[in-house]
Amino acid sequence: MKLRAFAAIVVLALAAFPSRAAGDPLPSWNDGATKSAIVAFVAAATKQDAPSFVPPAERIAVFDNDGTLWAEQPMYFQLAFALDRVKALAPQNPKWKTTEPFASILASDIPGALAGGNHSIMQIIGATHAGMTTGEFAKTVADWLATAKHPRFQRPYTELVYQPMLELLAYLRANGFQTWIVSGGGVEFMRVFSDKVYGIPPQQVVGSSGRLRFEIKDGVPLLLKEPEIDFIDDGPGKPVGIQRFIGRRPVFAFGNSDGDLQMLQWTAGTKGAFEGLVHHTDAEREWAYDHPSAVGQLDAALTEARAKGWTVVDMKRDWKKVFAFE
Amino acid sequence: MKLRAFAAIVVLALAAFPSRAAGDPLPSWNDGATKSAIVAFVAAATKQDAPSFVPPAERIAVFDNDGTLWAEQPMYFQLAFALDRVKALAPQNPKWKTTEPFASILASDIPGALAGGNHSIMQIIGATHAGMTTGEFAKTVADWLATAKHPRFQRPYTELVYQPMLELLAYLRANGFQTWIVSGGGVEFMRVFSDKVYGIPPQQVVGSSGRLRFEIKDGVPLLLKEPEIDFIDDGPGKPVGIQRFIGRRPVFAFGNSDGDLQMLQWTAGTKGAFEGLVHHTDAEREWAYDHPSAVGQLDAALTEARAKGWTVVDMKRDWKKVFAFE
Repeated sequence: MKLRAFAAIVVLALAAFPSRAAGDPLPSWNDGATKSAIVAFVAAATKQDAPSFVPPAERIAVFDNDGTLWAEQPMYFQLAFALDRVKALAPQNPKWKTTEPFASILASDIPGALAGGNHSIMQIIGATHAGMTTGEFAKTVADWLATAKHPRFQRPYTELVYQPMLELLAYLRANGFQTWIVSGGGVEFMRVFSDKVYGIPPQQVVGSSGRLRFEIKDGVPLLLKEPEIDFIDDGPGKPVGIQRFIGRRPVFAFGNSDGDLQMLQWTAGTKGAFEGLVHHTDAEREWAYDHPSAVGQLDAALTEARAKGWTVVDMKRDWKKVFAFE
Repeated sequence: MKLRAFAAIVVLALAAFPSRAAGDPLPSWNDGATKSAIVAFVAAATKQDAPSFVPPAERIAVFDNDGTLWAEQPMYFQLAFALDRVKALAPQNPKWKTTEPFASILASDIPGALAGGNHSIMQIIGATHAGMTTGEFAKTVADWLATAKHPRFQRPYTELVYQPMLELLAYLRANGFQTWIVSGGGVEFMRVFSDKVYGIPPQQVVGSSGRLRFEIKDGVPLLLKEPEIDFIDDGPGKPVGIQRFIGRRPVFAFGNSDGDLQMLQWTAGTKGAFEGLVHHTDAEREWAYDHPSAVGQLDAALTEARAKGWTVVDMKRDWKKVFAFE
């Protein structure tokens, strides 16, 4: 009995002081203003009876995915998935050899494939993200993640997640925050790996989506993915997605590009909230880019962050480690 | 120290055996096949190492709202809210006296107001649910709930929630289930009271929605409610809403009308899942209706429930108490 009582106290103590018991909760972050700002925010938000205290139910933290939680170069990983799918499906679609944007994709000419703008993108999405059930799509994504390799690092894409951000997610959760993804990426794509990779369950992933149609086929209920876009969770769509899915205003938001600006502005409207931006400044360990950039352009959001004192991560300076495999 | 250790053990014990410690977790349910089916499902789902075991992360329980968690007669409560709003806003809209559907509403002629079908409904929604920020709308709903009285019971609408269903929600949560609302009602309307009344936080409410627009006005970020419908979470829209918001298939679903049929079918596709229907059979304590009915028609879903052995609550027989105030 004595031992069980002792064990019970230890369990309670660990639950009450998760970060202290575990030592430095952010070991991959270098000491400095950025790390201090994060730790100070969490301390203030969890300090009982302080004016800065945030009740646990309101501790909503939102994160962009591409470029914020994992890398996004040389192209969005979901686009790499779509291009690989076109190549895999080409034998069943012989006409693609002579039809754009597929012909360019099969010739590995990506700028050519995207030259048709939105029309081309819709055709690629229609061919790779629709015409199947949600379960079939999830399996296709899982199979791709298990086998595809990132061209520069020659590792599975899911290893290209940022170690400091994994620590930040865990640190926030240990302090009672609910962590959410709010990304322009496809919601059905991200949910395949969000739980395993980030510890974020499917119901806490907000993303862009295509239309779904319910159908009963041979007595089996199905949800079919249709080629029409339903919602674009990017730019001004991000606060809309947050309200639609979460219904609460975040107190913590992290992004990395101009597509995250409105999410950060919406969060900044909450008193005492934290706004963070990842600035890609490390060409050696990752990439260095901001403006102009075809992927993850960071211009207006960086200007506003500097004007308003938001926290800007200088990847090269602030991150001791970028990827776990380093 | 001894006392704290003892307290710690009690806390842990209560957390481990919530239903046993509390005695009968469903005191407002009469003993019988319905109550037994619920208890048997929960026991099977939580039995470690049994084939029926459902991992905690997959314990998703979904509930319709109108007619399942609270009453829906003589009209959906959200419609009562909209009609009251029209009356409140009439002095600022003198033209309504001679324009339909508003003229009929102001004359308390509800069938007349709804005679124009969808067009009339869209006009009522546009006048009462749009043209304001999400925050302003939430305040309007909260003010109405605080003052409006149900015509038959002369009590606030939020007292018209079913006591047995409140117990069921708490029982499921005590056994590690995440409880969700999946309703045809407006998501922004339900979120105002879902946490307080049902213990269901805003991020676990799925509903119909209008379009939102993000805007910065005088430096203040706003989300404006627009008059266009974005999503109808009813009928075949319910499994779509479940996939879109939750991204997991439920293992437990409760509805009361044909609008819940597809949600129940989708849930029934999960092995070992529980499907329940509330059948309104108690004209004395509540109402008795199924088919035909202008509100909450129950016909195809009842036929399928009987054919497939789903659990059908006979309100008169199965509920010891309908409302807490009885």
